[in-house]
Amino acid sequence: MKRHIYLAMKPLAEAREIFLKRFAGEKGNIGRDEIAIEQALGRVLAEPVFARFSTPSYHAAAMDGVAVRAEQTFGVSERNPRILKIGAEALWVNTGQALPEGFNAVIMVEKLHQLNEESLEIRAPAFPWQHIRKVGEDIVATQLLLPQNHLIRPYDVGAMITAGIYRVKVWQRPRVAIIPSGSELVRHQDLKDQPAAKGRIIEYNSYILAGLVKECLAEPIVYDIVPDIAKEIRKALAKAVDSDAHLILINAGSSAGSKDYTADIIQEMGEVLVHGVAMMPGKPTILGVIKNKPVAGNPGYTVSATLSFQQFVRPLLFQMQGLKAPQEQSIRVRPSHNIPSKLGMEEFLRVNIGRVSGRYVATPLPRAAGSITTLTRAEGILRIPADSEGVTAEEEVAVELLVAEEDLQNTLTVIGSHDITLDILADEIRRQSHNIRISSGNVGSLGGILAIRNGLCHMAGTHLLDPESGEYNVLYIKKYLQGKKVQLFHLVLREQGLMVPKGNPKAVQGVRDLAGKGLLFVNRQAGSGTRVLFDDQIKRLGIEPGSIKGYDQEEFTHMAVAVDVLSHAADCGMGIYAAARALDLDFIPVAQEQYDLIIPVPLLDQEPIRLVLAAIRSQTFRERVKALGGYDPSRSGEFWMEIG
Amino acid sequence: MKRHIYLAMKPLAEAREIFLKRFAGEKGNIGRDEIAIEQALGRVLAEPVFARFSTPSYHAAAMDGVAVRAEQTFGVSERNPRILKIGAEALWVNTGQALPEGFNAVIMVEKLHQLNEESLEIRAPAFPWQHIRKVGEDIVATQLLLPQNHLIRPYDVGAMITAGIYRVKVWQRPRVAIIPSGSELVRHQDLKDQPAAKGRIIEYNSYILAGLVKECLAEPIVYDIVPDIAKEIRKALAKAVDSDAHLILINAGSSAGSKDYTADIIQEMGEVLVHGVAMMPGKPTILGVIKNKPVAGNPGYTVSATLSFQQFVRPLLFQMQGLKAPQEQSIRVRPSHNIPSKLGMEEFLRVNIGRVSGRYVATPLPRAAGSITTLTRAEGILRIPADSEGVTAEEEVAVELLVAEEDLQNTLTVIGSHDITLDILADEIRRQSHNIRISSGNVGSLGGILAIRNGLCHMAGTHLLDPESGEYNVLYIKKYLQGKKVQLFHLVLREQGLMVPKGNPKAVQGVRDLAGKGLLFVNRQAGSGTRVLFDDQIKRLGIEPGSIKGYDQEEFTHMAVAVDVLSHAADCGMGIYAAARALDLDFIPVAQEQYDLIIPVPLLDQEPIRLVLAAIRSQTFRERVKALGGYDPSRSGEFWMEIG
Repeated sequence: MKRHIYLAMKPLAEAREIFLKRFAGEKGNIGRDEIAIEQALGRVLAEPVFARFSTPSYHAAAMDGVAVRAEQTFGVSERNPRILKIGAEALWVNTGQALPEGFNAVIMVEKLHQLNEESLEIRAPAFPWQHIRKVGEDIVATQLLLPQNHLIRPYDVGAMITAGIYRVKVWQRPRVAIIPSGSELVRHQDLKDQPAAKGRIIEYNSYILAGLVKECLAEPIVYDIVPDIAKEIRKALAKAVDSDAHLILINAGSSAGSKDYTADIIQEMGEVLVHGVAMMPGKPTILGVIKNKPVAGNPGYTVSATLSFQQFVRPLLFQMQGLKAPQEQSIRVRPSHNIPSKLGMEEFLRVNIGRVSGRYVATPLPRAAGSITTLTRAEGILRIPADSEGVTAEEEVAVELLVAEEDLQNTLTVIGSHDITLDILADEIRRQSHNIRISSGNVGSLGGILAIRNGLCHMAGTHLLDPESGEYNVLYIKKYLQGKKVQLFHLVLREQGLMVPKGNPKAVQGVRDLAGKGLLFVNRQAGSGTRVLFDDQIKRLGIEPGSIKGYDQEEFTHMAVAVDVLSHAADCGMGIYAAARALDLDFIPVAQEQYDLIIPVPLLDQEPIRLVLAAIRSQTFRERVKALGGYDPSRSGEFWMEIG
Repeated sequence: MKRHIYLAMKPLAEAREIFLKRFAGEKGNIGRDEIAIEQALGRVLAEPVFARFSTPSYHAAAMDGVAVRAEQTFGVSERNPRILKIGAEALWVNTGQALPEGFNAVIMVEKLHQLNEESLEIRAPAFPWQHIRKVGEDIVATQLLLPQNHLIRPYDVGAMITAGIYRVKVWQRPRVAIIPSGSELVRHQDLKDQPAAKGRIIEYNSYILAGLVKECLAEPIVYDIVPDIAKEIRKALAKAVDSDAHLILINAGSSAGSKDYTADIIQEMGEVLVHGVAMMPGKPTILGVIKNKPVAGNPGYTVSATLSFQQFVRPLLFQMQGLKAPQEQSIRVRPSHNIPSKLGMEEFLRVNIGRVSGRYVATPLPRAAGSITTLTRAEGILRIPADSEGVTAEEEVAVELLVAEEDLQNTLTVIGSHDITLDILADEIRRQSHNIRISSGNVGSLGGILAIRNGLCHMAGTHLLDPESGEYNVLYIKKYLQGKKVQLFHLVLREQGLMVPKGNPKAVQGVRDLAGKGLLFVNRQAGSGTRVLFDDQIKRLGIEPGSIKGYDQEEFTHMAVAVDVLSHAADCGMGIYAAARALDLDFIPVAQEQYDLIIPVPLLDQEPIRLVLAAIRSQTFRERVKALGGYDPSRSGEFWMEIG
């Protein structure tokens, strides 16, 4: 079985330079369009624009008032006023009106005293050409108005029209042929209302890539899905190369997997410039050329495809239009913890960014290159250079923003145990106060308390039972947040229980059944509220952990436990009702627990925090939470205790 | 004659709050569209989106390799390898493929040794679920995918498709009716190839406003020009209010001029909320409401109309869509000199910004509200608050950028005497090196030398004759730049001469004719190279300044002199050939002079400076300069002298 090996993997910067240089200058090969000025907004000038007419094209009044002959006003003063005859010595003019022939100054309406219909009085002289916009004051015919390779903005359209430019030569918008390839891909339009069959994947990268192409001021042309058959790939590439597209993007089929013919086919039809880039995700990128047209083979995983596009295709599309790709805004952040990274690979970590107590903290999202939500949820990209083994929580590093920096000022970072009502809250606050965002990270209840201690978040969600007292959270806060003043607010009361497959095939009745009945259990990690609750439950029932099969098998989220149950990796697991409902599992209630939000006292008077607390107390939030099932919002938003 | 007075002029922030609050919340009145996901890019969600399907929707291989049963690999090590049968114990899988039933781990292709078609060897155990993307690992059905009021990006489209969301409810794009008003306005389409007749103005504000509307993710609908007739204005407003537009923008007709009925008509049809804002330009802004629809009356001057739009209409359009208008990026700059401003008015100064020796310097452009080029040429807006009498060159102030900050890194600031070949150079460098911009300011030759002294520019253009030696520039540099090391490079040699009306009606032969013949002359300001040259010319001829009529009448540019000649404000003036040619004047050559660029030595090794010098020496630049007439580029780019 033949498999590619990236013998010649290139550093990112070198790969990009090879690609861009190959199509620099005239070889960029984009034609010019001559278009009407009405269509010119957002296009790029392919030649300089020189003014044809001057502006103003005649001497014009710059103020509302009267036109006068300056000579007739000389010698006038407060003590020596002069009366002018309206219609002969003084003519009414409005701003922008042509100066009447023989007149050479304007006196503002505020500076004159109209005596009657026929005459007015002035008390100061006018100097020649005062309050007059002279011919060509703004634009002189023949002057350079805009240079070549200038991106046309609204003002520029106005300037060109007033200077008599009604048609302009602009660069064509680069056309990008996007070829989705992969036998596993299925069009969502063909699915009706069902998920894709097992082994099939809904094709959606082409939509993302088409959107990114548009952001480069270019035009996407999306081709039909091509199966993993060399002949078909060859045919699709040939069609795209012979079309009027300026650049061809073939998605997937570029890894070293067995069905990946793309690199060979490009080499056969033209030339592979780069195969394999020392970046992660995005390693299997192919950059090539066929008949002088750039061809990029993007990896199949969404995040890889996106990052590869942004690093190679985006700068080339701007270059083709005589522009430089705009830089993403960059800010300095502290990582929330040490992040190791592979030496020799430039890594692109998607991160959440919070601004807590005046500094930015970046928390990495999962590394999975197939996870689209690491892009939708990310606020930034943290790049770890190839020559680095990672970054530490002590160093400040640069992050490229995916959102506006101002949005971060109004983003509340909620770290800790995750609950679906936090998503409802995120939506509700966005509905009620448009500019506030909630960014949430899931590290378990104890992780949330530690995040508060380290100043990494504005709020932490926690549901840690003290088995002695039956009280929630207080014990743990006192233990881990010594010297820190915080307040506790109720978010929700919620049902915890056992999740079992639909129909409960093994007839599980409760926690008692877990001991010695051969049921395979899946547990939550130590430090999670659910684990504490479960341990308390079995202790009360006198069950030894060792007697529960699978007690050592740990997952980090309710949803992961639910997935294990759904896929028969376990017979049951403990979690919240919402998780069971999401995957259509059965649910056996075990206990109602208290889920609270911890907020450091110094943050309490911040506007976004106050608005979020108000949102939690709002009728709509309570109703939406209640509708989920498994929640009791009767005490939502209640202040409960100050500690520290 | 009735004239409005802004009795109730409001501070900017207050005016905006009145306007925005009036249409906050449900009163914003924008409907929802249900659209296909294919159309969703760039739209704003009108409701939260919850996932319908999980992703992955089945357990999938996360790597290329083989699927195995983890149990069958336990105990394997380097010293204790195991052979697996392909097809039974190990099944080839590619990334993304479904995990075969009964298998629970994937071993990467790099970690196995294929022995033959039937068998392979492994040397490490696989743990359960390794290299597998579990059901719902990325997205779980029912989870909140995106909140309400979220602007849909390319990634979001992908996430929604994979989660089974094929239609979304989004806010309608606000539709904005734009009504240009003014009897003086004429459509450029009706002009054929002629400038507008005297007293008529080409209507172009509607194009600028339409472009700005699009930048607010809204849809402009431009109405026909309405003359300054109350009945017609009333009719147009009524039509717009009764149309499906969400906001009505009436341009011009809002000052206190005699024909400005707009405010009265809005009050008559609805309610004027604000008339007159303490901002400059933009004072005569009207904000009102008719039948619950917002109506904005923008002043007629281009800059006023634009600024008024950005301050009032833009935030409202974003608010209508559940968004906050993005803030313009802001940087800290030093003004190039003290700038006084009127107390009680918030002033918006358009400024050029240069980054010289590591600090940003802002040089104000002309204040004229009618000057569209102050917008096209500006790099930023410097706002001087209402409670300030101005800013001094000693203080650092904030400037809102109109270009990307990175562009400023590659902008060369050229201050001094302006010459049209600098425009050619600006275009040429843009053509040759896409990302370099030239920003030029005209302060005369001596002003340029002082700008070098004060570190305000990268280069200064100067043509100051030393009458004693006949040498250019050196004397002045030695005098004013003591202790500063600079180099001098030739830009061009150029013709100076007398500009006279077409046909030379007064038969001017040369400078000699200016004395005692009753010719009205227009002079240039002291400190300009042209003035020095002229003074030298008359001295050689033994002409007393006092004998030249108009010697004291000074203009600041070649073009201003040319305009005076064109409009018979003077019979002749001294200037360069290009100025005469631009306004189709006759030109009587007087002398060839040397126009040089001064560059501080420490800046010489900067990449943009080197590229500009190379561009000056390029064949295309020389050819373009030669084609202008009146220039000799034979020594362009030549290094001439180092001083200091």
